[in-house]
Amino acid sequence: MSAGPLPVRVYYEDTDAGGVVYYANYLKYLERGRTEFLRQLGFEQRALAQEAGIAFAVRSFAAEYLKPARLDDELVVATAVEALGRAQVTFAQTIQRGEETLFTARVRVACLDLHRGRATALPAPIRERLRQTQPS
Amino acid sequence: MSAGPLPVRVYYEDTDAGGVVYYANYLKYLERGRTEFLRQLGFEQRALAQEAGIAFAVRSFAAEYLKPARLDDELVVATAVEALGRAQVTFAQTIQRGEETLFTARVRVACLDLHRGRATALPAPIRERLRQTQPS
Amino acid sequence: MSAGPLPVRVYYEDTDAGGVVYYANYLKYLERGRTEFLRQLGFEQRALAQEAGIAFAVRSFAAEYLKPARLDDELVVATAVEALGRAQVTFAQTIQRGEETLFTARVRVACLDLHRGRATALPAPIRERLRQTQPS
Amino acid sequence: MSAGPLPVRVYYEDTDAGGVVYYANYLKYLERGRTEFLRQLGFEQRALAQEAGIAFAVRSFAAEYLKPARLDDELVVATAVEALGRAQVTFAQTIQRGEETLFTARVRVACLDLHRGRATALPAPIRERLRQTQPS
Repeated sequence: MSAGPLPVRVYYEDTDAGGVVYYANYLKYLERGRTEFLRQLGFEQRALAQEAGIAFAVRSFAAEYLKPARLDDELVVATAVEALGRAQVTFAQTIQRGEETLFTARVRVACLDLHRGRATALPAPIRERLRQTQPS
Repeated sequence: MSAGPLPVRVYYEDTDAGGVVYYANYLKYLERGRTEFLRQLGFEQRALAQEAGIAFAVRSFAAEYLKPARLDDELVVATAVEALGRAQVTFAQTIQRGEETLFTARVRVACLDLHRGRATALPAPIRERLRQTQPS
Repeated sequence: MSAGPLPVRVYYEDTDAGGVVYYANYLKYLERGRTEFLRQLGFEQRALAQEAGIAFAVRSFAAEYLKPARLDDELVVATAVEALGRAQVTFAQTIQRGEETLFTARVRVACLDLHRGRATALPAPIRERLRQTQPS
Repeated sequence: MSAGPLPVRVYYEDTDAGGVVYYANYLKYLERGRTEFLRQLGFEQRALAQEAGIAFAVRSFAAEYLKPARLDDELVVATAVEALGRAQVTFAQTIQRGEETLFTARVRVACLDLHRGRATALPAPIRERLRQTQPS
């Protein structure tokens, strides 16, 4: 059970005056990747917020910028579950351009109870689906 | 009774691979200008949303891009009330760099009742303060 | 000869604390639409800049915000040539969610000679391909 | 010899549908902080690019998201040199709201020779000024 990588195109909005993708914008690509990863597992964030009253919030983030992406590049965002806790998930993510790895990141995300405004256990169906994506 | 212009610095985040400010980002400067204009009149948007249950939503927008802004430029956003309706305000805004006008816009904004999700009359104190900024 | 519409997904990056897509971010969707429109006609902007020494710059912009887009929405950006001059193109663009039109815009774009930093005639092959997209 | 912290106001552009500042946008605040830190030391990035042919590129990044920032918040970005190499600088940065620390980050930045497209030694005057900001 796995979730496929997400293709992303680089547009002018993503670049800066240095001629490359602005460093904060890789985090947007990563979040699109995590969102589509969850969607492939059957979970949409707006529905999670409205129906289950939960949301995911980034708690920590570490990244290596290896090579710059440029206008019109076709990138691929790969997302995998690296660690799965009771109320937190750590994702390992990479951004590739063809065979080249441009960017790698580890993102720790907490599950929030939106009504009480604090961390809560991952709902069992989400936790189970995330677990199934991990190599056994 | 008037509200002063807002200085804005151009950072990398604002530019694109063309070496100039990305065209959508002028709208961010404009919104900072309208926000500070309202703050100078005594109104904060988070408080308006939480206490009065209202927010402002842009309904229409027209702009002329005259000259590009660049990294490290110091800009000034000027905001004035051009027309004041029962439930709508039209702002005239410009972005200057020194004596040069880089950008002009007309922005029509509606007052929304957040609970009913539709347009509503501007609260009287806001309408009155906005009116006072207009030349008599 | 026509160019197809572009599907766009709404992510957290696009939304604001009002719970809807931030008003400047529609301009990003529009530019993705124009970029893919040109790409379908055979023109990539990075190549145009590097090989032909030209780029497109927005000169004027007018839009109507009809209904808000929200997180997870699937939108479609439609792009058409409304007027074609010697050195300028005016695009008519809409953003739809299913049958609903959320946003309409008219965007006038100039062709720039990047070396001389000023407007220049559209290269004949681009002009011809743009002309072919117009209904006869 | 030190460089002062940078006040930053949170606008709608910075927030997302979760009602808080979008996680990538803290990196914009950090970069404004580094830019103003350099400016206080006497260095402007556009001039560095045009006159010295150098630019700074982020190589690695690690951050902790401690508490969310919200619309209208007044934040303060503090920037300090944590480590200074021949061709790299590591900055320690925090974002505060009053007494609360909302966000901490460590950002490693390389000096790039823009003509040769690769890392180069920091110019001696910049290196010296950066060194002077460090506690002895």
